[in-house]
Amino acid sequence: MTFQRHFLDLDDAQTPAIESLIARARQFKSGVAHATTRLRGKLVLGMFFEASTRTATSFAAAAYRLGATWHDFGAATSSMSKGETPADTMHTVRAVGADAIVVRHWESGYPHALAPHFHGSILNAGDGSHAHPTQGVLDAMTLVEEFGTLAGRRLIICGDIRHSRVARSSARAAWLLGAKVTLCAPPLLLPQTSPGWGFSELSTVLDDCLPQADALMLLRVQTERGDGTELPPFADLVEGYGLTEERLKLLPDHCIIMHPGPVNRDVEVAASLIRVQRSRIDRQVENGVFVRMAVLERALHHAA
Amino acid sequence: MTFQRHFLDLDDAQTPAIESLIARARQFKSGVAHATTRLRGKLVLGMFFEASTRTATSFAAAAYRLGATWHDFGAATSSMSKGETPADTMHTVRAVGADAIVVRHWESGYPHALAPHFHGSILNAGDGSHAHPTQGVLDAMTLVEEFGTLAGRRLIICGDIRHSRVARSSARAAWLLGAKVTLCAPPLLLPQTSPGWGFSELSTVLDDCLPQADALMLLRVQTERGDGTELPPFADLVEGYGLTEERLKLLPDHCIIMHPGPVNRDVEVAASLIRVQRSRIDRQVENGVFVRMAVLERALHHAA
Amino acid sequence: MTFQRHFLDLDDAQTPAIESLIARARQFKSGVAHATTRLRGKLVLGMFFEASTRTATSFAAAAYRLGATWHDFGAATSSMSKGETPADTMHTVRAVGADAIVVRHWESGYPHALAPHFHGSILNAGDGSHAHPTQGVLDAMTLVEEFGTLAGRRLIICGDIRHSRVARSSARAAWLLGAKVTLCAPPLLLPQTSPGWGFSELSTVLDDCLPQADALMLLRVQTERGDGTELPPFADLVEGYGLTEERLKLLPDHCIIMHPGPVNRDVEVAASLIRVQRSRIDRQVENGVFVRMAVLERALHHAA
Repeated sequence: MTFQRHFLDLDDAQTPAIESLIARARQFKSGVAHATTRLRGKLVLGMFFEASTRTATSFAAAAYRLGATWHDFGAATSSMSKGETPADTMHTVRAVGADAIVVRHWESGYPHALAPHFHGSILNAGDGSHAHPTQGVLDAMTLVEEFGTLAGRRLIICGDIRHSRVARSSARAAWLLGAKVTLCAPPLLLPQTSPGWGFSELSTVLDDCLPQADALMLLRVQTERGDGTELPPFADLVEGYGLTEERLKLLPDHCIIMHPGPVNRDVEVAASLIRVQRSRIDRQVENGVFVRMAVLERALHHAA
Repeated sequence: MTFQRHFLDLDDAQTPAIESLIARARQFKSGVAHATTRLRGKLVLGMFFEASTRTATSFAAAAYRLGATWHDFGAATSSMSKGETPADTMHTVRAVGADAIVVRHWESGYPHALAPHFHGSILNAGDGSHAHPTQGVLDAMTLVEEFGTLAGRRLIICGDIRHSRVARSSARAAWLLGAKVTLCAPPLLLPQTSPGWGFSELSTVLDDCLPQADALMLLRVQTERGDGTELPPFADLVEGYGLTEERLKLLPDHCIIMHPGPVNRDVEVAASLIRVQRSRIDRQVENGVFVRMAVLERALHHAA
Repeated sequence: MTFQRHFLDLDDAQTPAIESLIARARQFKSGVAHATTRLRGKLVLGMFFEASTRTATSFAAAAYRLGATWHDFGAATSSMSKGETPADTMHTVRAVGADAIVVRHWESGYPHALAPHFHGSILNAGDGSHAHPTQGVLDAMTLVEEFGTLAGRRLIICGDIRHSRVARSSARAAWLLGAKVTLCAPPLLLPQTSPGWGFSELSTVLDDCLPQADALMLLRVQTERGDGTELPPFADLVEGYGLTEERLKLLPDHCIIMHPGPVNRDVEVAASLIRVQRSRIDRQVENGVFVRMAVLERALHHAA
């Protein structure tokens, strides 16, 4: 596997890189790859400016399984939060011996701003409404496990696309592997500009999309990402774009249901549907640890 | 040792289970049992909805000594706290690879509610005013170390019995090993219903109990567990049920003093008595780590 | 290396102890010393009553590199914070099996107050305006790396000396190794009493000091340590005692720049000077981990 120091987004990612990460993640999952001492002696710092126990725990579990040490940097109370420039903090944590930093921040582009100043690896665990690249790869892995090849398969991503870092990363990863991607949302929540999403089809009517779906991914409704634009009423979002028992009937039998979690029950997905047989929600979480192992290994193993 | 997945309370516990945990804890304490790689590769999550550095550190130390990894889930800031159902969080943390969850919660029965949804082990580190089963076993272990057999020995548990999860678990564990248990409290703080405590004698006058005591356990005065009932004045509780130098004279010479900690000095116990020779307060803490090792091993070793 | 249980300050430190710690730290830095299993099985608790991600991470990294386990005690939410006496907490954490406690506290002398009650090692990570002994040793190590011997070398320490725990420890460590130390500050921020600082020269005019400097250490401006005395206006402090491009010209070419971090850019040091070639700010951080390894080893290896 080629060494790539940072893992910031999938904006310029190419197909082989995604395939290679998924292949490695599947080796870890199958137990073929010997993992437990792979990153022994490496120090991975978690820097979560936005609380995220799920993603933090997943990255930590990935680090532990590779024999690395995980340490919570306590970003919220750090000197970085108290006025030190990120560049200075990056020099400091490198001098302390940190090999990789897993960053989550509410600001789009924050990990990218850190990257030039850190002589180790920056791994993006979600930045604002921009990117969540490990989520993108784990979603693609889940689709590959299901369908083998994604050529010609259709993935519907539904909900607040515009403010979702997950949508961008997951759509691109699936598309790089050959999937057709439809983004479905109320008009105000579709992406504002087309370039970054040019590979996708857009729709505003979920019921029209469902019969063609091989996989339906619901996004979490987030009220905290308002950027001053007028949002559609919450009820419209739930009624028009939530997965109900009624809508389930419009899906082909083989279509799987995905959600990056945590699920707002009876908002994006009816509570009764979260663990139906075709749900892959827990599988996504499970695959996340293996993808993060692959990402950590790719970033850090070069010098092991 | 038989595998038992969860460890939620001692309500249905039987004598052999308590004996077996204590026997194993004593092996760990004596250094006979080889522990350091016993749970290698296992991931134990701490989920403390109520802050508890003492119990959390004790469980963490137990996990470390067995070679397992301890990770603080940060329950207070988790998506569980933000509206995700406990069932969904349980599926998530299992998918992440957590093998055991150590839970403390202010609500009685909370760990029991999680248990059906987690395909690993739930270990109760204290739930509301219900149970604190590892405390019960460690108190019993401390008594066994002291007296060998508990048959015919009398344990006085004194203080706010009614709101104490410690009292319930410790009384039952000692009783299962043959001890006679007297619960001593102001009338309003004795247990409201008798069934769960039917094995015990009740008293409202501490001075009457002291001459018969082989062990005297003082409980922490907690003002935060009021459930709407009228509480006796704080001063009455201290004057009538705290251990003073005067009262110490009423105890038989061999009687030991116990307290689950942290002690409110000069409230439950006179400051001068906390580290007298007959105090086992530090011993209880020490034994706690070994009991938690035994509990973790029983829950997790089956698949090692 | 002689075993010394606690590491509280450098007030009574002698030259051989500082030399020995630096020598060991340099062995760790060079890779000569085999470190990774040195403190296996040891449990080091971080007790940070004042948030300090930098120092905490440095100590944690040191513990990890020696094979010890680092556990954050969460001092801010502990029962110690809720009224338990420090003595009781010390007995408890020892009973839990903690071998060392790394303490930071806003109160001068706090770690010293804990020491008699803890039967393991207390390591001071900064107490009030008193001492920061590992910082003192790492600064001395940085000077030794630069100059070989410090005999006759002049170290200027500049800024709020009076309230600085760093100044006291760093001045003493450098002086013990033979350096001449000048403390430079506005009159109100020079040490109030001379005895503890009797080995140093005092100055109130930075520009007079610069031409003689072999090393210039700027201190962090801290507004939070006011003790009721009248402070000089902030602007005076910056203008009279900050390192600017202009002042840099007054320094000899070989003079290095130091700062304990985190730097207030354009306050103590012009932003443009933080990473000039003669800056040793990142080197100080790097050396900090090795010094803390030496300190942890000295405290804990006796019983390994």
